[in-house]
This record gives sequence, C-alpha cells and structure tokens, in this order.
Amino acid sequence: MSNTDSSSEKAPWITYRPELKVLDCTVRDGGLINDHQFTDSFVRAVYDTCLAAGIDTMEIGYKNSTRLFPVEKFGAWRHCNEDDMRRVVGDHDAEKTGLTLAAMADASKSDWQTAIGPASESVLGMIRVAFYAHQVSEAVDMITHASEQGYETMANLMAVSNITDEEIDLVLEAIAPTPASTMVIVDSFGHLYREQVDRLYKKYAGAMEGTGKEIGIHAHNNMQLAFANTIEAIVLGSNRADATMAGLGRGAGNCPMELLLGFLRNPKFELRPVLQLLQEQMPEIRKTVEWGPLVPYNITGQLNIHPRAAMEVRASDKRDDYVAFYDAVVDDG
Amino acid sequence: MSNTDSSSEKAPWITYRPELKVLDCTVRDGGLINDHQFTDSFVRAVYDTCLAAGIDTMEIGYKNSTRLFPVEKFGAWRHCNEDDMRRVVGDHDAEKTGLTLAAMADASKSDWQTAIGPASESVLGMIRVAFYAHQVSEAVDMITHASEQGYETMANLMAVSNITDEEIDLVLEAIAPTPASTMVIVDSFGHLYREQVDRLYKKYAGAMEGTGKEIGIHAHNNMQLAFANTIEAIVLGSNRADATMAGLGRGAGNCPMELLLGFLRNPKFELRPVLQLLQEQMPEIRKTVEWGPLVPYNITGQLNIHPRAAMEVRASDKRDDYVAFYDAVVDDG
Repeated sequence: MSNTDSSSEKAPWITYRPELKVLDCTVRDGGLINDHQFTDSFVRAVYDTCLAAGIDTMEIGYKNSTRLFPVEKFGAWRHCNEDDMRRVVGDHDAEKTGLTLAAMADASKSDWQTAIGPASESVLGMIRVAFYAHQVSEAVDMITHASEQGYETMANLMAVSNITDEEIDLVLEAIAPTPASTMVIVDSFGHLYREQVDRLYKKYAGAMEGTGKEIGIHAHNNMQLAFANTIEAIVLGSNRADATMAGLGRGAGNCPMELLLGFLRNPKFELRPVLQLLQEQMPEIRKTVEWGPLVPYNITGQLNIHPRAAMEVRASDKRDDYVAFYDAVVDDG
Repeated sequence: MSNTDSSSEKAPWITYRPELKVLDCTVRDGGLINDHQFTDSFVRAVYDTCLAAGIDTMEIGYKNSTRLFPVEKFGAWRHCNEDDMRRVVGDHDAEKTGLTLAAMADASKSDWQTAIGPASESVLGMIRVAFYAHQVSEAVDMITHASEQGYETMANLMAVSNITDEEIDLVLEAIAPTPASTMVIVDSFGHLYREQVDRLYKKYAGAMEGTGKEIGIHAHNNMQLAFANTIEAIVLGSNRADATMAGLGRGAGNCPMELLLGFLRNPKFELRPVLQLLQEQMPEIRKTVEWGPLVPYNITGQLNIHPRAAMEVRASDKRDDYVAFYDAVVDDG
C-alpha cells in the first residue's frame, strides 16, 4: 500500500487509504445479461444503496447508440437519456451526496459526438470510455470530447489478457497525455492470476507516472478470482476499484461489492445497506438472469477466451454438459 | 516458485513443479454437511475421478470415534472401517495406481490407539491429524503412533486465524521433530487474505526448515478466496494442496478442484474427469446439501468467526435474512 507508516506495513489489511474510491457498475455490467431491461425500482434501489453505503461512483448504464441498440429491444440503461436517469435519481447532486454518476461509452458503438452533451446539463459527472486496443484512436477522441464537455473520464482498455505487451504499451502511451483521470485494468475474460495483475499494475502505473492518473481495476469472476485480483490491485496501489452488488454482471459476474466493502477499512463504507439490497432485490433478479462462476465460465476463463461460448451453452439445452463444452472449446483452440 | 530458472520466473503460471501433490478431501470435508451419509456409488465416483485425473491423494473420511459419532446417525465415512473402504476401493494398491488413500483423525474425537492399526493391513497410506492449538500434545502422540503403524502423516493445525503468533510458534516447534511429512496451513474460518497467507507460509516454512517437511494449504471459500489463497501458497512453495470436487465442503466449501487442476500445468493432471464428475454426480448431491460462498459465510469469514452461526441460519426459516444475521453476529462480537 502507498501508506508506508510502520503500522500499516505490519498489518496493511486493517488500515486504509482515504483516496481509494469504489465504483458500482451493477446496472451497467449486469445489463449485459438482460439487454438493460431493469425496472426503475431496481435501479433506484441500487442508487439508494450506493448513497447509503458510501460508494463513490455509480455507473448507471451505457451511452450507446440507438441505431445499434434499438429502444424496442434494449432498456433505458443502454442509452442513459437524461429524462430516463432523472426519473430515477431526480436532480442528483454529486457534491451534496458524495456520489458521482457515471455512464460508459463504447468505442464504435456510441454516437458520442451528439449523445454526450454538456456535463452542466446532466446528472452524470463521469464518462468511462471502453475500447479494444485497435480502437485507441477513437477512445482518445472520446475522452477529449467528454472532458471538454466537463466530465471526469476513465479509460477502460478491454480484454487485456488477449493482446500483446507491445499493444498494451502503445495504448498506454496514447492514453497518458489525455485528460482521463484513470486508466483501468480490465480483465474482461476473467483470465488473470495474481502475478499477472501485479505485472499489469506495474506496467500501467509506470506508463502513467507523472500524469497524476490513478490506476483502476475491473475484474471478472470466471475463476473465482475477481475479489482476490481486485484487492491485489488495491494493495499494490490502485485507488479505483469496480464492484457490483452480488457480483451481478455478464457471464461469471464481477467482484462482489459485499466482499469488497467487507475488506475496506474506511469507516465511510457501510456493508449493511448492501446486504439489505441483496436480500430485498436479488432473489427477484435471479429469477430472470443467471450469472456467477459456473463451470463453463471457469473453462473460458482458464482458456482465455470470451465468455460468449459459455453464455450460449448456458442458454441451450446442453447447459449442464460440461464435458461436451470443454471438448468443443479445447478443440476450437 | 522454488523452480528458479529464468523461464519460470518470467511467467511462472505456465510452468510447474513435479513435486507438487494434490489431495482431494471431497468426501471427508463434504461429509461434515451430511454426517457423512454419502452413497457408496458417490464415493466410488470420487475415487474413480481421482484415479483418472491424476490426483495424488484422496482423503476418504474420518477415523473418528463411534462413541462420539454413533453409527446410527453417522455414515461409514466418519469412521473409515477397513470393510467399508474395501467395499468401494477393493484392495486398493497405492503404488500401482499412484493414488494414496488418506483418513483424518481429530484430536480428542478419535480412539486412535485402537482404531489406527498397521498400515500393512489397510488400504490407507496416510493419516492426517487435525487439532486445535491446545491439543498439540495429543496431536504429537497421534502422529507418532500413526507413523509407527507405517502411515505417512500430516499435521493440520485448525483455525489458525483465531490464535496468536506465540501459539502458532509453539505448535510449529512441537510438530517440527515429529515424523509428519507435512505441516498444513488450515484456514478453517475462511478468513485469510493473501498477505496473511504469505506471512503464515513464511512462518511455517521457517519453522520446518531442515526437517524435510512440506507445507500444505487447506483453504475455505467464505470470501471467494479459497482458490486464490491456495495458488498463492503454491506460488510461495507449498507442495501439498487440498481441494474438493465443486468445492464441496462445510459451509462455504473449499478450493474447487476444477479451478486448481485448471491452474496446474503438470500434464499428469486431467481436468476432464473432474468435469464429468461435476456433471454426473453433483446435481444429485446439491438436492440434499448446501455449500458455497453464500452471504452469511461471507460475513463469518470477514468477522473471523466459526461458520457454525451461518450454517444454523441457513437451516432456519431466516435463511435469507442477511441483515438480521449481520446485526446479530456484529452485536455478538
């Protein structure tokens, strides 16, 4: 931990860094399972929980294109129109509540030039730009635009386990001079072991040295390592950590908020409201969507492949035929 | 990793140590949920899977007292009588199959003087002695006895997160001169974070230096850290790792074998037979017992308390009232 007084070195797991911020991406990442068809009352419950639990940022959805994601099929949280957000959060005040609202915009899937207007007219205070390595030029433009509109921005390079060191270096070089506040380590495939998180953290932190940027961590739970990798990055110095309520998220899901808040020692964080949300909201959600470190996700994580194949098999009548799935993906490889 | 050639230092997660051995404790630890009432066909399926998967040791149950655990209530795998074991594994030959069979004996719960006879007359090749710190003297006697009878032995100091450094040191000092082959780090409460595993590993390894003993790891999954902590100990140098099929085990369960074998790079290990067991046997088991990192187990793990309270609430009509459970255990503390 960056806090280097002797007491924190002796037992760092009982101290804390006040600058560490937690981002809830339950609705944004979880919506990838159900085309963002969440009820307003669920989104409001997550919002209220973030406020009560002392969470710093809530990512309420995507700013993605209605051409690619038509409103007939996708719920409001795929587009995050101002009216839809205000229906749930009213005239949200980040300063008064201590909670920043964020939306994610995907490179090549967002009409960001028109969809992302002035921050002064929005309840949003942050835009997170998600991109694959080959989309880094558009990502830089998106970050610049959103920043000029008055938003804090983060750069989320996806699927980092699937690209070369040289590609990562080039991306980091391109992001370093942008106004992004944070460069996020994103383990989209849930493939990273701790030692790989360590290497990426050092690489990201080294490339951002002197820029004032923070390093973030967004882990997936394919190998039941999302929480472990998240706290590993935190221990190394990451000051921005993503988590979701009950780990809700695409495929294997994310780092569970209830575990992360139990780990963090800053007394501003409250676990109890999160437990209340889990108990009151999640049984209903579980009736309609599935997520978690199920065997097919274990396998795609281990093999470093997109969870798509596992999601497909879970939606088929072969959902529990692990051996056939394993044989098929190993054979593909 | 102890293998220090440069290629393994660059990417240690793709190399392996041939001396690393895996122990399956599915029936032994899982039996704590159902009083060891497993069918012979389930135990045989686990045995066949261990053989097919290249697993080194299978812990088939306990050698515990029939006075304390009457046969009317507890299944055969609480006592591991020779006849019961042979009904499932026949005249098991460890040398020919490469699989050692083990049983656990608890200090103060085992009539070990009479129940543990000559190894030459048993299918068992190993006795694991489980004990709390205050039982270390009996544990030393048990290890000595089992060793004299011809068994390999391991020393499993339980609930290590709940005792002082001085107590741990005393136990390690007492175990060091015994014939035990392995001293096992046992996180009974599922409370340890990685840095704590690191400190314990260094302490255990330091105390056993020069004795030729290996360091083992037995993790519980309360905070979804069983796999992470197991591979952490392995990376540090542990050459004996415990896991169970589907993580089956008391409360939150154990390190899942399907994740561990996916991590290990020794080609002698085969994941496929494990997947087959999960698919063919576990749906039936799940109908009768519950395990896994459920919210009440998250909470007891975080608070460093025995999972008993969480098991009780899961068996009650308040099973999903996480907030009431949290309030109750925090209030107790």
